[in-house]
Amino acid sequence: MAPDSKSSNDLLLHNSLRSISYKRGSLQLLDQRKLPLETVYLDIQDATDGWNAIRDMVVRGAPAIAIAAAFSLAVEVANFKDFNGTSEEAASFIELKLEYLVSSRPTAVNLSDAAKKLIEITSNVASTSTMPESVFQAYIEAAEIMLDDDVASNKAIGSYGSRFLRDQQKIVPRFSVLTHCNTGSLATAGYGTALGVIRALHAEGVLERAYCTETRPFNQGSRLTAFELVHDKIPATLIADSAAAALMKESRVSAVIVGADRVAANGDTANKIGTYSLALCAMHHHIPFYVAAPLTSIDLSLSSGEEIVIEERSAKELLHSQGGLGEQVAASGILVWNPAFDVTPAYLITGIITEKGVITKNNDAFNIKDFVEKAAGKSTA
Amino acid sequence: MAPDSKSSNDLLLHNSLRSISYKRGSLQLLDQRKLPLETVYLDIQDATDGWNAIRDMVVRGAPAIAIAAAFSLAVEVANFKDFNGTSEEAASFIELKLEYLVSSRPTAVNLSDAAKKLIEITSNVASTSTMPESVFQAYIEAAEIMLDDDVASNKAIGSYGSRFLRDQQKIVPRFSVLTHCNTGSLATAGYGTALGVIRALHAEGVLERAYCTETRPFNQGSRLTAFELVHDKIPATLIADSAAAALMKESRVSAVIVGADRVAANGDTANKIGTYSLALCAMHHHIPFYVAAPLTSIDLSLSSGEEIVIEERSAKELLHSQGGLGEQVAASGILVWNPAFDVTPAYLITGIITEKGVITKNNDAFNIKDFVEKAAGKSTA
Repeated sequence: MAPDSKSSNDLLLHNSLRSISYKRGSLQLLDQRKLPLETVYLDIQDATDGWNAIRDMVVRGAPAIAIAAAFSLAVEVANFKDFNGTSEEAASFIELKLEYLVSSRPTAVNLSDAAKKLIEITSNVASTSTMPESVFQAYIEAAEIMLDDDVASNKAIGSYGSRFLRDQQKIVPRFSVLTHCNTGSLATAGYGTALGVIRALHAEGVLERAYCTETRPFNQGSRLTAFELVHDKIPATLIADSAAAALMKESRVSAVIVGADRVAANGDTANKIGTYSLALCAMHHHIPFYVAAPLTSIDLSLSSGEEIVIEERSAKELLHSQGGLGEQVAASGILVWNPAFDVTPAYLITGIITEKGVITKNNDAFNIKDFVEKAAGKSTA
Repeated sequence: MAPDSKSSNDLLLHNSLRSISYKRGSLQLLDQRKLPLETVYLDIQDATDGWNAIRDMVVRGAPAIAIAAAFSLAVEVANFKDFNGTSEEAASFIELKLEYLVSSRPTAVNLSDAAKKLIEITSNVASTSTMPESVFQAYIEAAEIMLDDDVASNKAIGSYGSRFLRDQQKIVPRFSVLTHCNTGSLATAGYGTALGVIRALHAEGVLERAYCTETRPFNQGSRLTAFELVHDKIPATLIADSAAAALMKESRVSAVIVGADRVAANGDTANKIGTYSLALCAMHHHIPFYVAAPLTSIDLSLSSGEEIVIEERSAKELLHSQGGLGEQVAASGILVWNPAFDVTPAYLITGIITEKGVITKNNDAFNIKDFVEKAAGKSTA
């Protein structure tokens, strides 16, 4: 299939921090393991390349993973010379490949959510058309729309979040916030979730300073968030994860804003390891704690965080420098417990900032289902 | 002066993890920045070498710093060929050198405490003797006694602590504990404070597992504590600092035990950055939180932790791997806040384990002054 001049990626041409560089039939992923020292793009030709890139952390961040996975399959099918099969077989091919891609990072709900939607679209086309090319064409277009939607939804999160925070903090002209991990342009298709809120606060002149944690063991904070903040000339300071409590005690931050890998129906949130600790420390210091995430990160099928499966990652991330890729740091022979995520219970969360507004509590509880249903009603109205 | 065959270091010959290798007139310090990959001893010839070694983290840990500093001056004076001066001038020389050594790590009270005692001893000798050699001889002997006392006091901390914890946890046959930073043989003259308690629990067969934090940014946990635990064949697991809250939530640990750089009269404790966060998380999970420290770490002149000056360390510790000595990790241009310590308020501390017993609370408050006075009475009785 010919490259499409209306590539969704045009939206991002002004953003030098593109993690996903896509033109129809061609996909390059920024190798985030090499940041901030090197800017290297890896060519992704098919779903297998995509699976490896996600598993090996070339690309990370729940929204970016979903789009990278969808596009890896989009370039595979765009470059088919010949597909010997029916349209139903084309849809089955896509379904199998998407299920395979989902297995690369099981905790990220955006990816499985995106896969479900894409499977539905392609099987619908297969049921009305006999041409396998129509199925592939529909798949490619749907993946491209996902990218546009992600950027638009991030901008809306930034805008809702910054308005909400300004209202909460209105007694002071400028305030500082703390964030964890990377939730910016590099973790999404562009702009960011928690970092999108920080970008919006900065753009509106109310941000005193952004503090970012190092985010051990993979250093997404010191490598990626710090890189984005410096790039955008946002006043920013890096701290060790363990220094967050001392930072709060000194009243240096007025809010904590983090992203989410998965939000359960009651508001319990799975996010990068260390988020739970930050939320406990924030509560103790009476500092509001916000989760910023698109509605696609919400999984209403989970009644609480206890149902979220926590992925454990390689011991090497703690034993070696550079998140496991560098030289040995730790003592030989030590065992390691390296959960990638933890679950922050809803009672520690002040609000959930989405692209449809901020979900707050009523009688100490979030009614997320209600919010999601109303938002869906609004958008189709 | 001739080497003394009764070198205090004989006590430690069975411990392969000697951080301080001393014979009268000769001092080598294990370069802990190179652990766990290399075991390199640096030759220390005078107080200037000692100051640099402490400042550059060749040796760390409040008790070890005090002894290394005292010995660096001991070898300097032991190797004097000729001292052109009176005994009063010899005492002044020692006083000036000790004040200089104290400036290498201002937060560690053990060092300034030791300096005070050594100054008193030498000025007493100077007032009764006209021979400068007598002053130097008295200084050297006093420094050597400090080493013996430190090891003995560590063993007593281990013994009191393990007995106390076993009594508290008596419903289970074995339990696990979490520790932070390095408080073992490498941080002291031998055996350790918090790690001494863990060694004693293990020796008595009641330790299920020791968890140690990585302890960013200088990795004392993954490099040194993990090294000591593996060396002693104590079942042990390393975690990221930020994973401690998740560890507690999963009920994997029954107690947290940390060391102290300085304990104020009310029990507020300055210790490695991240201690405060661990204490907050422990309180939330109803897990007892213990500080293990010799009485020399208690500074009754400070009424609370608010009077403790917190040292800030180099940004490089976060910007580069290997605690600042390795390659660049973080984004160029990012600012850094890197406090070496934080203060854990007494209300988060369950008990303070000393070489004279465990200080517990009465009506929610520690009466440390009373405990210290009684302990002093006991030891002179």
